[in-house]
Formats: sequence, structure tokens, C-alpha cells
Amino acid sequence: MQNVKFSELLHRYKVFFFDSYGVIKNYKGIIDGVPQLFEQLHRNNIPYYLLTNDASRSPAEMAEKFHQTGLNWITEEVIITSGMMAKEYLKYKVPQGKVAYLGTLGSAYYVESLGLEAIHLNDLQRQDFDDIKAFLFLDDEGFDWSNSINLTINLLRKRNIPVVVANSDKIYPVSKEQVAVAIGSLANLVESIVQKRFIKFGKPDSQMFMYAYEKLLEKQVVSKSEILMIGDTLHTDILGGNKFGLDTALVLSGNTLLEQLEHSVNNTGIIPTYVCESVSMLD
Amino acid sequence: MQNVKFSELLHRYKVFFFDSYGVIKNYKGIIDGVPQLFEQLHRNNIPYYLLTNDASRSPAEMAEKFHQTGLNWITEEVIITSGMMAKEYLKYKVPQGKVAYLGTLGSAYYVESLGLEAIHLNDLQRQDFDDIKAFLFLDDEGFDWSNSINLTINLLRKRNIPVVVANSDKIYPVSKEQVAVAIGSLANLVESIVQKRFIKFGKPDSQMFMYAYEKLLEKQVVSKSEILMIGDTLHTDILGGNKFGLDTALVLSGNTLLEQLEHSVNNTGIIPTYVCESVSMLD
Amino acid sequence: MQNVKFSELLHRYKVFFFDSYGVIKNYKGIIDGVPQLFEQLHRNNIPYYLLTNDASRSPAEMAEKFHQTGLNWITEEVIITSGMMAKEYLKYKVPQGKVAYLGTLGSAYYVESLGLEAIHLNDLQRQDFDDIKAFLFLDDEGFDWSNSINLTINLLRKRNIPVVVANSDKIYPVSKEQVAVAIGSLANLVESIVQKRFIKFGKPDSQMFMYAYEKLLEKQVVSKSEILMIGDTLHTDILGGNKFGLDTALVLSGNTLLEQLEHSVNNTGIIPTYVCESVSMLD
Amino acid sequence: MQNVKFSELLHRYKVFFFDSYGVIKNYKGIIDGVPQLFEQLHRNNIPYYLLTNDASRSPAEMAEKFHQTGLNWITEEVIITSGMMAKEYLKYKVPQGKVAYLGTLGSAYYVESLGLEAIHLNDLQRQDFDDIKAFLFLDDEGFDWSNSINLTINLLRKRNIPVVVANSDKIYPVSKEQVAVAIGSLANLVESIVQKRFIKFGKPDSQMFMYAYEKLLEKQVVSKSEILMIGDTLHTDILGGNKFGLDTALVLSGNTLLEQLEHSVNNTGIIPTYVCESVSMLD
Repeated sequence: MQNVKFSELLHRYKVFFFDSYGVIKNYKGIIDGVPQLFEQLHRNNIPYYLLTNDASRSPAEMAEKFHQTGLNWITEEVIITSGMMAKEYLKYKVPQGKVAYLGTLGSAYYVESLGLEAIHLNDLQRQDFDDIKAFLFLDDEGFDWSNSINLTINLLRKRNIPVVVANSDKIYPVSKEQVAVAIGSLANLVESIVQKRFIKFGKPDSQMFMYAYEKLLEKQVVSKSEILMIGDTLHTDILGGNKFGLDTALVLSGNTLLEQLEHSVNNTGIIPTYVCESVSMLD
Repeated sequence: MQNVKFSELLHRYKVFFFDSYGVIKNYKGIIDGVPQLFEQLHRNNIPYYLLTNDASRSPAEMAEKFHQTGLNWITEEVIITSGMMAKEYLKYKVPQGKVAYLGTLGSAYYVESLGLEAIHLNDLQRQDFDDIKAFLFLDDEGFDWSNSINLTINLLRKRNIPVVVANSDKIYPVSKEQVAVAIGSLANLVESIVQKRFIKFGKPDSQMFMYAYEKLLEKQVVSKSEILMIGDTLHTDILGGNKFGLDTALVLSGNTLLEQLEHSVNNTGIIPTYVCESVSMLD
Repeated sequence: MQNVKFSELLHRYKVFFFDSYGVIKNYKGIIDGVPQLFEQLHRNNIPYYLLTNDASRSPAEMAEKFHQTGLNWITEEVIITSGMMAKEYLKYKVPQGKVAYLGTLGSAYYVESLGLEAIHLNDLQRQDFDDIKAFLFLDDEGFDWSNSINLTINLLRKRNIPVVVANSDKIYPVSKEQVAVAIGSLANLVESIVQKRFIKFGKPDSQMFMYAYEKLLEKQVVSKSEILMIGDTLHTDILGGNKFGLDTALVLSGNTLLEQLEHSVNNTGIIPTYVCESVSMLD
Repeated sequence: MQNVKFSELLHRYKVFFFDSYGVIKNYKGIIDGVPQLFEQLHRNNIPYYLLTNDASRSPAEMAEKFHQTGLNWITEEVIITSGMMAKEYLKYKVPQGKVAYLGTLGSAYYVESLGLEAIHLNDLQRQDFDDIKAFLFLDDEGFDWSNSINLTINLLRKRNIPVVVANSDKIYPVSKEQVAVAIGSLANLVESIVQKRFIKFGKPDSQMFMYAYEKLLEKQVVSKSEILMIGDTLHTDILGGNKFGLDTALVLSGNTLLEQLEHSVNNTGIIPTYVCESVSMLD
């Protein structure tokens, strides 16, 4: 575990995989020095991907959000979401029919873009239980938790259908000190009650890394040792990167604070290759 | 495990401990044949207690609810709630000050009857976090889950205070086939996120059994082998009764259905002394 | 949480409940200043009990071990073990027959003193599976783990019998820095595989506290507020004492080290009334 | 979920991924009709891979074992083990030095073939703790559980090093009705005590599927929809295959018995595309 400035790492790797929230932006907006980083990546033709545990909106909407902040470099092609992994799964296992989901209306993209009919749980009637082919946990917003979680539990006690968790994160930061429950925790609550095994997507699983790596290989030959994964969370970004065989850099601009660093690494046994304050080019 | 009519058991024991929900009443109201049972208990001067995992209202309110249905025999003196166990704990550990809680307004009884100030989470401001001496999970109703659970998590990440779960049940039945998430599950969700150890009350823990037994001993000398515990749930009523050293009767009028009986007993290894269809005197 | 010398607490309470290992003795033998403590307790006629999560030998053998070290005050009457709680359970639920167990030969006391036939797992043949009425986890020694755990799993997959864990501790210290796996962890391993619910005994459950308190009340009237529980482990001694409504003192002569104290209390939310270096009268 | 003879599926897919134990062989040896299957696969030039959660020996040794039974078709090139995934991880994260392990001597292959020094835990002295760069759980045989698990726990409490579980299976069948604890369960026991996060390999994780798929693509272009994954275990083979986007066939010649089938599928929500009695060509 080396402490370095992120700018020093730019020369050591040929490709960069970034987590998004806590690395590129946070609750205050785009992190200082990030626009300069992406300018430099583009100037030097360095390929990169964003790997994000997020199924609340489509990659196109996410790119649009970056553009609104002036970060025009980031296009939908480089954004890989855990929602996309869930969508791939659905594509193979649920060829047609109605799929119920918990999440924002925007998250329905991951169902509808497959030609499936997305039924928001708010609109699900008990008499329609038998028509539902699969259930998706997409996002923690867009529904009343009490009504919707209870309805979900009763649906899943009655119907033996695939249940997909499109983002297995447990919490996410909403300010410097505050966090909020993420959809992964709500899925765990339901799973512990209905006692079925849900199908979960998102880092640290290898799928998103594999997906990005395969996209990359279509364009150029790169060995895994030439790729750096950068993230703010040990259990997802760093564990996932380590397991896929990438070098990893932990940044302290998000979930992991400097004062917890040593304790967290010791407690988890998840060891990043590098530790950087942030990805800022201004440090 | 003997299959018997409950009426046959009346002569075999001197004292009866009943679970309430699923045994005496259910989502439809008082179970048929129950009024006749209590009439007979009173006619024969047979002592009994109700042991209920419930902290949503005071024993007095619960008795009042029974009276409204015509079941006038049941008085507040024989009702023992998990909320009372939590109250005993608070009495020793939190002599004064403000206690925040999640639950109905009625559940605040368990805080206020101690002379403590009960702050419903809906009324808690972040600037008041530092004044809170303890936190209670009392009931799953009376608050918006999303706002309140997130606020609870941020309170408990910031403050190192005792956290008490006054009812550790995970679900409860709301109709023949439907269930709802109980406060115990919400407490587990929060516990898994804040990674602290909460103090939990309710069957199968021995406390409520001990409390009832001590009350009983004040009036007459009874050996544990002369008491029968009756409940509808293996994990709480039957395990708790078995562990306290009582004979136990499982009734099929609540959480455990006849078709699941064998599988549930095999899977849990929790074996009641008897199985009865219900406590009805009319069977 | 007050830091005090233990000698100062002697005047504040009328009765003392002690954990044994890590409080009175440790891997090096009797802790310095402990003989003086017990001399003083006896000189002043102060009642005390030892509450220990241990089912490896009978209270008589434990007392004998204390006598061998010169600590003659401690008699078998004041020793309350989690094995005794398991024995009480068996007494009610298994009136006769063969009970298989994992543990030392000495631990068979808890079965044999009931008139049951204790079958050490080393002596259990597959053809005898059908005769076994219950299974006990008593101690981590006295058997080959690999053979015996595998045999236990196959027994419990085949037979639906009560499974009792007579000591739910997960680890125990064997030197200043080394620990060993306790029988509670082996029971958890088996439980996670056979997916049945085992019946567990030992602090923090209220039973041992209740047992000691009832014994005490036979001799004199004491309120819970006049009893101090002293232990070295937050999750068992302090949580159990707190839950039973006793004041608690954490000592730093065993499982909890000074440098972990703050972190452990913050992480668990289990708060002792006092913290003492040890129970030594020489401090 | 369609019930079919496996021979009918041979024409529907271009490539086959097989689990090994419970599918091709079991405790009695090679399953009847399996030699005929592999003869037919080779006669028709149908590619296949074996994906096995096993780190007890090298692929070469596994192939040799098949040859000893007369199954000469299966070569080391088509065998993909979870041990190989762990080896890939080590290759990136531990460039040199000593790696301690639990397992058979044969399992050391996965360390030694990297040029690392493999220290069997039986040979590890406490004074050498500081030299160990990583720890591997490889197999449940080759060591005394009690001594070695306790030593492992003390090593991992002292040293903050990567811990790799090369086979996350919990049990494995040793006869028609008997099972044995697999190394994944022992790793879970240690993990729950040292409270660090171990890095785990094996199905249902996508890595072995990805590894096989990449090997396949080097030889020919195949879409995932043309590959069938066949296994005997819902939680590993079928979940893993489903998640990777493959059609899946559950065989009833191993972990999942016909009488448990419906219950297991309902309880887990893991639904195979097909159910076959076995892969035998003789059915």
C-alpha cells in the first residue's frame, strides 16, 4: 500500500477504470481537479471506463448529468452500470412478459429497453401477482417503503420467480457525514424474510470488470496488469479490482475517510495497491 | 409431539401461559371458542398469563381492546409484553433524559411511564442528536420508513447510546396469507448497517417467562412442570417455553399452518410437547 | 462508564456476580490480589456467585481446581455453569435414553447426573443413530474435530432431535495473545450446515442470572440494584448483566484489553457501569 | 423448467460446460453412461469444459484420475478449477515469498506453480508468522482441524495479509446419504472469528465461466446462448450459469435429489432451464 499522488499513476498504466460516486463526483458535485483529469486522459488518448453500482437511470441519462456539470468528455459508451448486468441477466432468463420492480421511474429503463413490460410496484395489484415473470430491486427511491416492501414480500412468498438485485450496495453517502440506505440493504431485508436466494449484481462481482475489459479488447490489446481500478470503497471497488487481477487505487474523497483507513484495511484484509487523496490533478 | 384437543390439556396443567396473536385472536378478531375457554379458566380459578411480543401499546390498552370484543375476563394484570421487558431495562440504564423511538404514539407509553421524555423520531432534529440518551424500536407503524430509518442510521452512527429492540419479531400475519414486516426486521436492517449490538427483548428469551413465573409465585407455589405454554410460533413461543423448562403446545390457528408443520419442526428441531388445532373449547 | 478501583466498589453493592475466566483466573493461573478479595468477601459475609460459560466439567471439579491453587473459599455451591442450564433443559425434555455429545469425558457429567446415558461421539456407530434422543455440544476438547464434526452433521441430517449448545462462547484466550475456538463456534458451523435451530445456553442469556438470583433470594431479600456483575467480555457478561437489570463492571484482565476498550464499547453499544483494571485488592 | 433426457439436449447446444463431481463421477466412481457421452462429444467435435470447485489437486492430476478410470477423453486442458482462479489472484497480488495454506500436499500445486514458497500449516512456526505474505484455504484434508484452525486464527489475528478461499463449497457428498464439511465451511468459521473479509473463489462467481468462455473464444466464435451449463447444485452450478447468461441443466445424480427438487427450487428461487436424471447416454 503506497501513498502517492494520483497524477503520478497516470504514467504507470495504459487504461483506467473509475468508480463514479465518491471518485469523480460526490454530494457537492464534480470533485475539484476532475475536469483537468479527463482533459488530460483525452489529450493523451488514454482509454477509461466508469464502473458504477447504480441502476437508478440509464447510462445515457448519467452522461447527460455529467454534461450538465460541464464534464462533457464522459459519454454513455464508457459508463458501465450494475443495472446493465441485471439487464443482461433478464435478457437471457425472461424473454417476454411483465416484470415488477422497486425503484425510480428512470430505473425502468433496464426493463423496458429489453421490450419487457415494467410494472412499478406502486401499480401492482394482488390479482396480477400471477402474471409477473421476475422481480427487480433497482433503486431505493420512487416508492413508499412500508407499503412497497410489504407488498414485495407477499408477492415473493406467493410466486417463485427470479429476483434480481441490480445494485447490491448497502448504503451511500448523502453528505460529508450522512448516509442513506441503498437498495441492496432493502433487498437483504426482504431476502432474510422470504428466505429465497436473490441474484445480485454489482462490484465486487467480476461481471462489470469483465464487461469493461471485453469492450476494451474490441479496440486494443491490453493486459490486465496495465489497467488501474480506482475507487473509494474497499468492499466493492478494491476487492472487485483485486479479484479480477487489476492493480487498485483507493481514493479518500468518498466512503473511506483518512482516519478510518488503517482500521478498515486491517479489519477487512482488502489491500489496495495505492492510496491517493483523490483523483484531482490539482493536488 | 402428540396431537390432542386443547380441552384435554386443561386438566393436565395447573397454569397456562398463552401467546396472544394467533392463539387468542387473529386478523379476523377473537378466535371461535376462546370466550368459552376463558370462562372455564375463571370458573375453575385456573391462573393464566398472556405473553406477547408487542410494544405497540400498554397492557391497559390491550386489555381495553379485548373488552371491546366482549372478552372481559382478560385484565391488564395478566398481560406481559416485550415492551415491559424493554421498559425494565431502560429503568435501570437510563435514569432520566430524552429517549428517541420508532413506533406508534401509543408505544411511547413504555418510555413515558418511566418519567423519561419520549421523542418520536418524526420530531427529532439533527441538532438534538446529542441530547438523546437511548433509542427504542417499538413498533413498525407510526412513521415514514424511508425518512425515519435513514435518520435512525445517522443518529446511531453519530451517538454511542444503548439501542433497545422491544419486539424482536420479524413478521406478523395480517390476513390468512399476507404478512407484514415487524419492527424486529427493521431493527435488524439498521443493526447490519451501523454494526453495533442492539439489546433485544421478546420471546424466545427467558425474561418474559421469568417475569410471569415470578408474578405467579407471589400468589401460589407452582412447579414449572405444572405450567403449559401455548403459542403459534415455533421460534418464539415453543423455543422459549422449551428453554424455560415448560411443556409447550403449538396451535395451528396462526403463524404455523398444518401443511408446514412437519417441515417446520424438522427444519428447526424445535419440538412442542403437543399440537392442537386451536385453543377453542368448541373443537 | 466510570473508571474506578474495584476495591471502591466493594462498599457500594451487597452481592457480587463474577465471571470466572479472565476475572478470577486466566491462562497464568489465579490473578494477583484475587485471594485477598475472596478473603475480604468472606470476612464481611458478602454473598457472591461465579457465573461461567463452561460445560467442560462439573461445578465440583471446578471448585476442586480452585482449591488446588489455594483458593479454598470457592465452593461448588456458588458456581453456576452454562452446562447446568443445558442440564435443566434436558431434564425437562429428555426424560430417558441415550444422549450423544461432543466434549471432554468430564463434560459428560451434565448428562450422566440426570440418569441419562451419555454417548461420546467417538463411540457412536451409524447403526445407533436411531437411538439417540438429543445431542449436546459441551466442550471443544476430547474429540478429533474432523471425524466428529462430520459424524455430527450426518447424525443431525438424519435425526430430528433437540440439539443443545451448553456454551455459546465463540473463542477463549489461551495466552496473552493467543485464542482458541470454543465449542460455540463449532456449533455454529454445524448449525449453518444442517440448517436447524439449536438451543443455546450461556451468558448473555438471562437464565444463569435468574438462576443465581433465585438461589440468592432463598437466603436473603436483595434488590437487583444491589448486585454488581463483573466480567471481562462485553457480549456475554456485560450485555447479560445489563439486560437482567444489574449494574456491571468490565475488568481489563481478560478478553478486553485497555487499547481496544473505547473501540469495543463504541462498536457494540454495550456500556458497562464501571471499568476496572482487575478485581485485585492490591491495585 | 423442462424435464428432458440429456441426450435430447446434445443437439440443441454447440458447447457444454460440466460440473465434475455429482455430474460425471460420484462417490461410486464414473457415472454410468458418461463414457458414451464423452465418446459422442469427441466423435462430433463438440467442445466442452469441466468447471469444478476444487483446489485439492492440479488439473493434470485430475485428468490422470479420469484416465485411471478409463475416461481417457478428458485432458487437463479442459479442466478449470476454482484453485486456478485463486492462483490467478495470487499471481497478481503476491509476487514472491512464503504463502501458508490449509490443504493436502497436492493442493500446494496452486502456490508452487507460481514460484512461491508454499508452507503447509503443519510446518508453520509462530516465529515465522511475520514472513507469510498470504494465506490460502485449499482443501479440507491434509491437516488436523483442531490444531490447524486454531493456528490459522492466531496467524490471521496477528497478520493483515490477503486470505484466499480457493473453494467456497460448504459440504460435499461422500456417499448416497453422507456428506462431509468442505473447506469453504472451515473458511467461514475462521472468517466469523477473525472478522476480516476473505477473497473467495468458485462457482457461482462468474470468473470460472468467464475463464472457460475466453478459452473457448480463442478457438471459435460462440454466443453464450449456444452454451449449456450442467450441474448438480443449484447454488453454485445453476446460479452461476444463470448469472453468466447461460442456459442451465440440473442433474439429479448428485447433491440435489428428486424428492427435494421442488422444495429446493421454490426455496432458492434458482430455476434451471432443464432438469435431467443424469448426463447418461443410456437413459
